[in-house]
Amino acid sequence: MSYSRLAIRLEYDGSAYAGSQFQPDKPTIQGELEKALARLTGHETRADFAGRTDAGVHAVGQVAAFTTDRSDSSDGWLGALNGLLPADIAVTAVAEARDDFDPRRDATRRWYRYTILARRSRDALARGRAWHVSQPLYLEAMQEAASRLVGRHDFAAFCGALEPGRTTTRTIFGSCLSRRGEKVRFDVVGDAFLPQQVRRMTGALVRVGQGKMSVDELTATLEQAEHGSSRHLAPPEGLCLMRVDYEGFNFGDNDEDL
Amino acid sequence: MSYSRLAIRLEYDGSAYAGSQFQPDKPTIQGELEKALARLTGHETRADFAGRTDAGVHAVGQVAAFTTDRSDSSDGWLGALNGLLPADIAVTAVAEARDDFDPRRDATRRWYRYTILARRSRDALARGRAWHVSQPLYLEAMQEAASRLVGRHDFAAFCGALEPGRTTTRTIFGSCLSRRGEKVRFDVVGDAFLPQQVRRMTGALVRVGQGKMSVDELTATLEQAEHGSSRHLAPPEGLCLMRVDYEGFNFGDNDEDL
Repeated sequence: MSYSRLAIRLEYDGSAYAGSQFQPDKPTIQGELEKALARLTGHETRADFAGRTDAGVHAVGQVAAFTTDRSDSSDGWLGALNGLLPADIAVTAVAEARDDFDPRRDATRRWYRYTILARRSRDALARGRAWHVSQPLYLEAMQEAASRLVGRHDFAAFCGALEPGRTTTRTIFGSCLSRRGEKVRFDVVGDAFLPQQVRRMTGALVRVGQGKMSVDELTATLEQAEHGSSRHLAPPEGLCLMRVDYEGFNFGDNDEDL
Repeated sequence: MSYSRLAIRLEYDGSAYAGSQFQPDKPTIQGELEKALARLTGHETRADFAGRTDAGVHAVGQVAAFTTDRSDSSDGWLGALNGLLPADIAVTAVAEARDDFDPRRDATRRWYRYTILARRSRDALARGRAWHVSQPLYLEAMQEAASRLVGRHDFAAFCGALEPGRTTTRTIFGSCLSRRGEKVRFDVVGDAFLPQQVRRMTGALVRVGQGKMSVDELTATLEQAEHGSSRHLAPPEGLCLMRVDYEGFNFGDNDEDL
């Protein structure tokens, strides 16, 4: 019997899930995917994920991988999985990967986008997809603060719970604020992210935008690297995992401007 | 007692409503707004709308107006109405208007956007906000077809049910296709639109994009002006009323790039 290793790209609305990672008796993205894989293959099939997303966090570019003896084309897998997965989870690409492909360990870059709806009145259309911030935001200060996050740093201050002894040093390649109408986007690309890191960084940036914290105070918090000291956590619904990049592997389509 | 005429801008997720216009025993945008107004004013208050949107159609720039003896600031009205309206309807601006302001009759331009999710795999995040079209679309042909709609024409071919004797001539000022990642947008600005006109035009454009109809056939359909002859109707969930413009009246904020 021959086995193949398949990588899939997942899009999901995280609203109804307790996060990406499997938890017994709770709806999770991994749980739904493994249920669909079990139905297709007839036996338990473990799926590995590129990154953990919290409850309520969305993805357009999560990557998962699994090993199977079921032989089918990429298109066949795509159709079969989408036929079994719930409406708020979709497989958008399938590709063959190396036998030892590990979507988490092998990832070289991860891109997250945090969306803020910055306006006084509450929103009706972006519910569950953005953080509504009704106080005015001073974007120039936020952009300046965002740029201070770029580089190789100990991000302990922006880290949630982590197993003891694990390093909290990460590299951020790009960190950018932009406005599109009433929406303010924080796009951040890094080698990897700590638990809650993007949500805590966003929380701090919004405090800077509201004038409750200066850019220098944010920089000092980063430099002091006291575990979890930046406690303002942006809500999960504004966050989306946009893309995960690999050396020598991609899904063969251009999603540059997603 | 002094009366004032107020104009409000409404954003809504139309998914749960039988359209904007009041219908007894059905949830409608007008019904919800009039219910909130009755609670605030203590008596029945009629709201007039700029345009009728079908069941499932969204808006970020619907305009309504009402006359009231309740005196409050614009900010007071905004807060009070948003406190009473359901979560999928929001008031985003309030402004005083002339006593005889009629949001439908006085409108000079209306901008609608139709969003298509153009990709093979089904979608998880744009559900209820876009029309998923899984066959490839030839955008250049769609853009060419869209440009043929510009100008003053009898749009009878793209008209749904209409009271007999009403004119079906309208003017389209701009009609534009654009792509943003996997999303294809059809933005159309006109003086006014017939029932189902944007959804029928979109339906025809998608047939052109799929190679099922030529640009010349679409032009011929328009010119023949046979009532309702262009019967391919794009589903409501992709449509959004973006903005309504008036001569000498606006909400005093810049929403150019919404």
